Amino acid sequence: MMEPYKLYYWPTIQGRGEFVRLALEEGDVPYIDVARGRGGMKAMTELIAGGSDPRASFAPPILQAGDLMIGQTANILMFLGARHKLAPRSEAGRLWCNQLQLTIADIVGEAHDTHHPISVNMYYEEQARESKSRARDFAIERIPKYLDYFETVLRANQSRGGWIVGSRLSYVDLSLFQLLDGLRYAFPKAMAAYEGRWPGLQRLAGRVAARPRIAAYLASKRRLANNEDDVFRHYPELEQGVRVRPRG
Amino acid sequence: MMEPYKLYYWPTIQGRGEFVRLALEEGDVPYIDVARGRGGMKAMTELIAGGSDPRASFAPPILQAGDLMIGQTANILMFLGARHKLAPRSEAGRLWCNQLQLTIADIVGEAHDTHHPISVNMYYEEQARESKSRARDFAIERIPKYLDYFETVLRANQSRGGWIVGSRLSYVDLSLFQLLDGLRYAFPKAMAAYEGRWPGLQRLAGRVAARPRIAAYLASKRRLANNEDDVFRHYPELEQGVRVRPRG
Repeated sequence: MMEPYKLYYWPTIQGRGEFVRLALEEGDVPYIDVARGRGGMKAMTELIAGGSDPRASFAPPILQAGDLMIGQTANILMFLGARHKLAPRSEAGRLWCNQLQLTIADIVGEAHDTHHPISVNMYYEEQARESKSRARDFAIERIPKYLDYFETVLRANQSRGGWIVGSRLSYVDLSLFQLLDGLRYAFPKAMAAYEGRWPGLQRLAGRVAARPRIAAYLASKRRLANNEDDVFRHYPELEQGVRVRPRG
Repeated sequence: MMEPYKLYYWPTIQGRGEFVRLALEEGDVPYIDVARGRGGMKAMTELIAGGSDPRASFAPPILQAGDLMIGQTANILMFLGARHKLAPRSEAGRLWCNQLQLTIADIVGEAHDTHHPISVNMYYEEQARESKSRARDFAIERIPKYLDYFETVLRANQSRGGWIVGSRLSYVDLSLFQLLDGLRYAFPKAMAAYEGRWPGLQRLAGRVAARPRIAAYLASKRRLANNEDDVFRHYPELEQGVRVRPRG
């Protein structure tokens, strides 16, 4: 029997760890969310930059799978995709999944920087003015640039099923669901104004949410609620006065 | 005979494409730097978001290798690493290289944001004030956090040779060279103040620069000069009054 994987991630936020949690849940892979258990935070801090383990990652999430200790979200997902049928087997398919996932990582990083445009070592409140400028640009320019791109990629996929790569669900679909969910939480007015602009992505997200294992996960206590310590944060003032262009 | 690869990247900057160029050069892989040739910019814009090709990437660099069209720097390097002996063959070695490369991508993204903290759609001059705050944090907090981490990883590698993964040069070593080179160009005062803090990385960068193919490349016209349209930019005002802490 396989030893359960160990996921090391901040215990109170979805964050980047959530992309990994969704893959583990959909793949029906046994795992322990270490930092949410007793002594787990200590175990995690030893595994990140400045910690005592020689295999330390720069930052969480980290996945321990047997002897492997894997950091960087997209890297973990690539591993899970290959091991647990959450990605195509062909080299071209794997590279394409990884490419799309890295592009999702880019917009997630930009979403984070809407509330931390100056420094991760300062509170949001200390950079709220700059956040307003960055969030405006993100809502008006960046969200549509990225989501138009993913909608185009989805439309160009000739396979049936409505998934973004080939004819089967991959970890990239799970991540797109999480991206849309996070954007809707953080920028509800902008995303409402864009309503209908990305019908393919909307259907894809709905199909992901309806997967039996994902639906069970989302209804469970394992799914953490959105909050303002997370990557996707809702600060109403960041949308104030922002007028997006619903169509391209 | 293998058809030369085609690299699509901005023709006047090192940028993210340089990590790919270094791997192609060290791997002795024939390639065409498409956008630097006649009609090349048009060919490239068709391959990026908003372009007409269904295999479009969100942004350059893009590598065309036979039937494969590969986007995202770390993804391209993973491909080149496997094909051209610039990475270990083992799964653990490949994942570790990719993890380190993605961490390099993170600091490169942060280096870019020191001159574009608010919007990529505005000129530096329009966000120079915010750049000052972000650059100060980057020089004082982020550079040492990342480089201390890479120095620790390097020291923890028990294999001989002084490379960061195993006992042979990998694309991660090439990227670390490029990272240090870029940081020294963009933040000369801070990097001079840190002198001696990362002796392993400094030696590694020196050994990369002395590789015959890399040395020939760096001395050739193919190596573009640093400039202020690039990811690493030197704006003296961004270092003004910044006092780094030379030791951790």
